[in-house]
Amino acid sequence: MIELDWKPTKNSPEPLYRQIVVYIRDKVAAGDWVIGSRLPSQRDMAEAFGVNRSTVVAAMEELISYGILESGYGGGTRVKSNTWSLLMSRPPDWSEYIKSGPFRANLPTIQAINRLEFEPGYIRIGTGELSPDLYPEKLLTKIFRRMPEVVPNLGYLGALGLPELGRAISERLREKQGIKVGPSNILITSGSLQALQLISVCMLKRGSAVYTEAPTYLKSLQVFQSAGMNMIGVPMDGEGIKYWHIKDDCKDSLLYTIPTFQNPTGTVMSEARRKELLNFAAGHRLPLLEDNAYGELWFDARPPKALKAYDTTGSVIYLGTVSKTMAPGLRIGWVAGPEAVVQRLGDVKMQTDYGASSVSQWVMTELLTSGGYDEYLEKLRVELKERRDYALAILKEEFSGMATWNVPEGGFYIWLRFDRKLPMDKIFSDALKSGVLINPGNIYDYGENNAIRISYAYAKPEELKKALKILSGIGEKYYKR
Amino acid sequence: MIELDWKPTKNSPEPLYRQIVVYIRDKVAAGDWVIGSRLPSQRDMAEAFGVNRSTVVAAMEELISYGILESGYGGGTRVKSNTWSLLMSRPPDWSEYIKSGPFRANLPTIQAINRLEFEPGYIRIGTGELSPDLYPEKLLTKIFRRMPEVVPNLGYLGALGLPELGRAISERLREKQGIKVGPSNILITSGSLQALQLISVCMLKRGSAVYTEAPTYLKSLQVFQSAGMNMIGVPMDGEGIKYWHIKDDCKDSLLYTIPTFQNPTGTVMSEARRKELLNFAAGHRLPLLEDNAYGELWFDARPPKALKAYDTTGSVIYLGTVSKTMAPGLRIGWVAGPEAVVQRLGDVKMQTDYGASSVSQWVMTELLTSGGYDEYLEKLRVELKERRDYALAILKEEFSGMATWNVPEGGFYIWLRFDRKLPMDKIFSDALKSGVLINPGNIYDYGENNAIRISYAYAKPEELKKALKILSGIGEKYYKR
Repeated sequence: MIELDWKPTKNSPEPLYRQIVVYIRDKVAAGDWVIGSRLPSQRDMAEAFGVNRSTVVAAMEELISYGILESGYGGGTRVKSNTWSLLMSRPPDWSEYIKSGPFRANLPTIQAINRLEFEPGYIRIGTGELSPDLYPEKLLTKIFRRMPEVVPNLGYLGALGLPELGRAISERLREKQGIKVGPSNILITSGSLQALQLISVCMLKRGSAVYTEAPTYLKSLQVFQSAGMNMIGVPMDGEGIKYWHIKDDCKDSLLYTIPTFQNPTGTVMSEARRKELLNFAAGHRLPLLEDNAYGELWFDARPPKALKAYDTTGSVIYLGTVSKTMAPGLRIGWVAGPEAVVQRLGDVKMQTDYGASSVSQWVMTELLTSGGYDEYLEKLRVELKERRDYALAILKEEFSGMATWNVPEGGFYIWLRFDRKLPMDKIFSDALKSGVLINPGNIYDYGENNAIRISYAYAKPEELKKALKILSGIGEKYYKR
Repeated sequence: MIELDWKPTKNSPEPLYRQIVVYIRDKVAAGDWVIGSRLPSQRDMAEAFGVNRSTVVAAMEELISYGILESGYGGGTRVKSNTWSLLMSRPPDWSEYIKSGPFRANLPTIQAINRLEFEPGYIRIGTGELSPDLYPEKLLTKIFRRMPEVVPNLGYLGALGLPELGRAISERLREKQGIKVGPSNILITSGSLQALQLISVCMLKRGSAVYTEAPTYLKSLQVFQSAGMNMIGVPMDGEGIKYWHIKDDCKDSLLYTIPTFQNPTGTVMSEARRKELLNFAAGHRLPLLEDNAYGELWFDARPPKALKAYDTTGSVIYLGTVSKTMAPGLRIGWVAGPEAVVQRLGDVKMQTDYGASSVSQWVMTELLTSGGYDEYLEKLRVELKERRDYALAILKEEFSGMATWNVPEGGFYIWLRFDRKLPMDKIFSDALKSGVLINPGNIYDYGENNAIRISYAYAKPEELKKALKILSGIGEKYYKR
């Protein structure tokens, strides 16, 4: 923890010992040297600082008198006072929840992925994000240029968000998805994740069951885990979630579903299954949380309408976002639901962050009302489909006879399942050594599996090809054992 | 709740009874007719819809068969199934916390203010926000125009936020405030409120004491209340908080302070008091949360440096924002603290909303690095000072002999204290009837007081004059009784 990569300035008017005092004080104040850390020996410090040992002694004495350092029992000197560090050393509630439960084993992989995604040099073949190459630079330039005329000011907004955006979104939901909502049914959030957060805070009791498809994107559901919910995976078939596995007594529960281009399997829930699920939900008073992040990214044919469009009993809360279709950095999502629910979520949102950025909300409004978003989506669908076809061709070449996979009709994901049980942790680290970052299936599942989530949306096609070749080589190595 | 402001279409191919079924189904599905609501009598519905009673009976029967309506025990028909409403009717944890504690009495006033602030037609003389007249339209136009060249893409960002903004803020804190921090000590948040929220989730235990100045802006601290903290007001004098009133045993506690241009009293903590408070905090291992929202809005002389600048023991977490100095709609705030703390808060932020809007963060970066923000601040200080002087002149004319007030050296607020105990609730509602929205002192205080927070930042000067005249008339009426 404690590294001495600094030397005092010899020709400074400030005495050497004083420079050392200030250096150590700042390190402790910044929290870089945490409380309880042991300092190097006086001899080592003298050497590292390039000063006499007596200079170090003088500095230590001053720092001890300030209460910043203390003499250790077994000799040596330790950092004594850094109030915040003290406070931090006590494990807070949220971390206990995260550590408990089925995520435990998965966390190190997720953390590694989160960290490595911000390090250059890896080909990322699992990233659930559009490639920067697909960023609609021209469109956004046009929109940004219009902002000065569009934005009247940047004051505080009401609980539901920018009214102009609420109107644009409710019109879009009515026209494109047949969802009957008005502006008072729409709450703007900072992405869908915040909507999940608000729902977990406002509506669910600790210990409530949250049913999800298995596999699903558990990372985005950590918010439920953290709030003490009991996550339960429900198996799927080709038509979607097998809802009949849900317990008859599902009081106080919630079902979170991604019915269209599901993450990570790409599955589309059939129209029949949607209607059955809604009947089941109404009969069991089971609220449904429909995440439609990928619904607009269809290739050849529109998927069935959103669950919310078939909902006649007010069972569904619908979540939308542009994080997957355009730009996560806008941090714009929306909840469509009954007025009372939306109002309540909005009130709590006001207490946590006073609403989403109005700059982002104006940009989004302009994207929708100018028609620019729809033109963009049309082009994006074509490009994503090309990327999908390219990925499928490589998979056929590289993984035939070793794995099977779905042919997604939209969205980002191919769920690549090896035919045999393979050591996925080793595959992850071998791939990493070869410069390939994969998203292994166990971070999506309640138990182990032999799958990998492939995203054709992020990596450049030629890089995807290179990475899939590497991955198939690694797979083969273990497959043949 | 249930209003029948709709009629079926007589010449539609859809039978009348069916149109009524769909109408009521949608009302219930949208949550507009909540569960348990009683429908009007069949006779009244027949009249309102302009149909025969038998048509209403047919529609009711169908809706009852769907489980949407049910026959009431005492006759009549009620809304039966709306799954979300059912769920909502159970009081969730957060609302229990908000209802308990010292806010109880204040809530109705705060709620009224929150609602009325979005209704036109009131002169708002307490609003803690810059007037739209002060919105730097030209500057922001310039900045928006530059966005296309500045923004590389709008992908996900790391836990601490946009690195370019972290660098710009840490440089600013070093240069302008003498706070020794680097980019790794800075976390970008969606305004200061989110920082408070993260701190309450990550660092404080239920039942921990949170000390604040009394009075303070309690509304912004509801987040601590909601999380079950025990709020304790500490009295102030002209030099700031009288910290010696804090219990010697303040383990697990936190002190939240606005040392500069305090909200609502305008007080500036003296340099001596700052140093004493830091000594006290270090000695008692009491962490300090310094909210410096107004610090850059000084008029004639710079205020003392931030507490964080004098902090040699790592006791202070510093909160900054542009919500008060420029535009709350940007939703940009920052935390400056020890690396370990900032990293932890950032991790939790990633779990709640994946970070602040990158559009806003780029706008802010450009504002800081272009020098535009500083030029703007210089002009703003002059304008705010003029508004202050204007407000003081009116107060002298209208309230002499009835009330006293501070002369703020920066920030937004004048704390107007009546010399006698007056019925503040009546003054609030009388003012409202005359079109003036005031922020009565009891929403800032732990007990009652005879004060009103006047903000010279929001209302137009001539409107402020008009409103203060009205207020003094109302005050006089009660004062003389």
